Amino acid sequence: MPVGRTAATGPHVLRQMNVAAVLSALREAGTAGVSGLASSTGLSRPAVTRALAGLRDRGLVEFTAAGGTQQHGRPAQYARFRAEAGHIAGIDIGARKVLVMIADLAGQVLTTRRATVRAGAAGPEVFDTVRSALTDAAAEAGVRLSGLWAVSVGTPGIVDRSRGEVLLAPSIPGWAGLPVVPLLREWLHCPVSIDNDVNLAVLGERWQGVAADADSLVFVQWGRRIGTGIIINGMPYRGSSGAAGELGFIDLTTGLDSTPRSRPADGTGPFERLVGAAAIRGLALRAGAPAGSGEDDIAPLFEAAAAGDRAAAEVVELVAARFARGLSALLLLLDPGRVVIGGGVTRAGDTLLEPVRRHLALHTLTPVQVSASTLGERAVAIGAVRHALDVAEERMMTPPAG
Amino acid sequence: MPVGRTAATGPHVLRQMNVAAVLSALREAGTAGVSGLASSTGLSRPAVTRALAGLRDRGLVEFTAAGGTQQHGRPAQYARFRAEAGHIAGIDIGARKVLVMIADLAGQVLTTRRATVRAGAAGPEVFDTVRSALTDAAAEAGVRLSGLWAVSVGTPGIVDRSRGEVLLAPSIPGWAGLPVVPLLREWLHCPVSIDNDVNLAVLGERWQGVAADADSLVFVQWGRRIGTGIIINGMPYRGSSGAAGELGFIDLTTGLDSTPRSRPADGTGPFERLVGAAAIRGLALRAGAPAGSGEDDIAPLFEAAAAGDRAAAEVVELVAARFARGLSALLLLLDPGRVVIGGGVTRAGDTLLEPVRRHLALHTLTPVQVSASTLGERAVAIGAVRHALDVAEERMMTPPAG
Repeated sequence: MPVGRTAATGPHVLRQMNVAAVLSALREAGTAGVSGLASSTGLSRPAVTRALAGLRDRGLVEFTAAGGTQQHGRPAQYARFRAEAGHIAGIDIGARKVLVMIADLAGQVLTTRRATVRAGAAGPEVFDTVRSALTDAAAEAGVRLSGLWAVSVGTPGIVDRSRGEVLLAPSIPGWAGLPVVPLLREWLHCPVSIDNDVNLAVLGERWQGVAADADSLVFVQWGRRIGTGIIINGMPYRGSSGAAGELGFIDLTTGLDSTPRSRPADGTGPFERLVGAAAIRGLALRAGAPAGSGEDDIAPLFEAAAAGDRAAAEVVELVAARFARGLSALLLLLDPGRVVIGGGVTRAGDTLLEPVRRHLALHTLTPVQVSASTLGERAVAIGAVRHALDVAEERMMTPPAG
Repeated sequence: MPVGRTAATGPHVLRQMNVAAVLSALREAGTAGVSGLASSTGLSRPAVTRALAGLRDRGLVEFTAAGGTQQHGRPAQYARFRAEAGHIAGIDIGARKVLVMIADLAGQVLTTRRATVRAGAAGPEVFDTVRSALTDAAAEAGVRLSGLWAVSVGTPGIVDRSRGEVLLAPSIPGWAGLPVVPLLREWLHCPVSIDNDVNLAVLGERWQGVAADADSLVFVQWGRRIGTGIIINGMPYRGSSGAAGELGFIDLTTGLDSTPRSRPADGTGPFERLVGAAAIRGLALRAGAPAGSGEDDIAPLFEAAAAGDRAAAEVVELVAARFARGLSALLLLLDPGRVVIGGGVTRAGDTLLEPVRRHLALHTLTPVQVSASTLGERAVAIGAVRHALDVAEERMMTPPAG
């Protein structure tokens, strides 16, 4: 009979838990006195003082009289978290752009830098763009690259996180198989991690977006491609092969008793071909409704629908009904309570989301709150910053060697 | 910026962690010496001895010389986990039967008792059957009802676990709204919990079934109704409203641009009406293939298919293709790695599962291992025993008051 093992523990673990509690309380407060920290952590004043001294030795805390009042003739001592003691970077890599954010240890973003990637650029060229964008962003933030404590990278495709490379990414030629994380680690000498972009976007939405601190949450990226990032019980859920959330591949279109056709070269899935941005533009063209000139430019369709164009409104209704049919499968299976929809299509806002909500109600059993992303194009990079911060937090908690 | 709080801790927490570690190691071993426990827990011998003394005071450990060799002229002391110090019950409630298992604190099942429920019986009558089946099972096991440490109940329907009652259960009239848990608690004076039956079945499969200790796992109940129980990262996942896993309600049949028809009175969902047991029998009848006389008796169909009947084989192929289409939505979204299929339909074994696996490969992106349940009808009750054991473990870890 399997029974969970509980690790035995000792006083050094206790001391470290105390340091973690003090650091956590101080990071939340920014600046705090010993009494305040004692009451917010439940620790004794001597224990708080000991923890603060250790954190000062690691450069994470400084003592200040600022904001203090006179007590017994000497200035009250306040501890301040030194968010500037280290920095982190979050990077969003796409087929056409690289977005880099540099933040301090409080997660405050100091610089955001966007670099364009040439259409059709292959993996090595994209990697060079990442290098130069990160170098420039760090310089702009006044941060040396050696001062980075952690870097987190988001990329399209299915990712092997342990090997630190992409297994499958049809949108960037020669990107799959490039040892992105090993190359960055060799250059930067700090922990570097890589994840699928929507898995980071959902972290960003939960950290700074409309669904802040939701316990469970699904982020749906709705553009030309359709994918989802899932948080369950506060933790990212990636599935047993790192391939969870592939909403774009569910098949609502092939006749029920027919064999699906072989996969197309562009790597898209049946649901993407049904209601992805390019498919929406195709529906608009066929219906004689306004459509943009780019292959997935659908802004004119939604503008026309919002302005009362009847053909456009009918296309939007159809798109909402079809999208709701697919999303309802996800809601019936995961019952997440909260869904945030991002990606190009959702620039349409309530013109699209209102009919989506209406159709969802026909297919689901329990209520769900569906919102448009407020982070927009920044969601992935913000999620990468959040992830890098988690990694940096481990270093903050680790006592210096020796 | 939200930062996770870490609870401060003290020596009493440490002592309790040590007790938990010793108890866990001893339960795994059954009987063990102080040295063995010290090496398996990493604790000092005095710490182990202290923990064992506390556990003996709580009746959970007894010292024995049995199996010991003479050392320095006196018998070696061995500690034995007293699995008989308390008992637990797991109960599976269905529209037509109640299954009760009584187990000891090691999870060893002492008695299994099955009581038939009259067709059409209403909630109060079902509850009376539960009372008498539990009373009889306890008597047979030689356990007084006051010796039960925890009782866990599985039921069809959507469950409000905090209120301890069923919100929606079309298969048992008058069952929804009956305060099952409060009534049992009042009678038994021990912790009682209730959960949806498939949520318990997946616990049973992970504990004693083919997917023992799988980190993530989906159990699919495939009978007249179709539902799934989900384990993610070792924990049951129920969704934000307790309604996760409703595979039976995904809609692959209504025309994509049509509105689904209103819900039928029997509470079934579109996927259940497509490939549930009753639907399979309907397909067999229409194809002129063998079918049983009961409304969801499909054993003759699968027997005929296995024996080479062509019409039957074609129906099985169709059923497998349709079921795979729906299940693939779940696999694309959850990427669970392991799926166990139980319920009446899977008595067909590989006659059905082999074509299901073949069709799944056409719709999914990553490999998945699909197995038939080996626990069969006992899965829910075994899962209920596992859950009750988890509750009893909390009591084992809790020091006596005062």
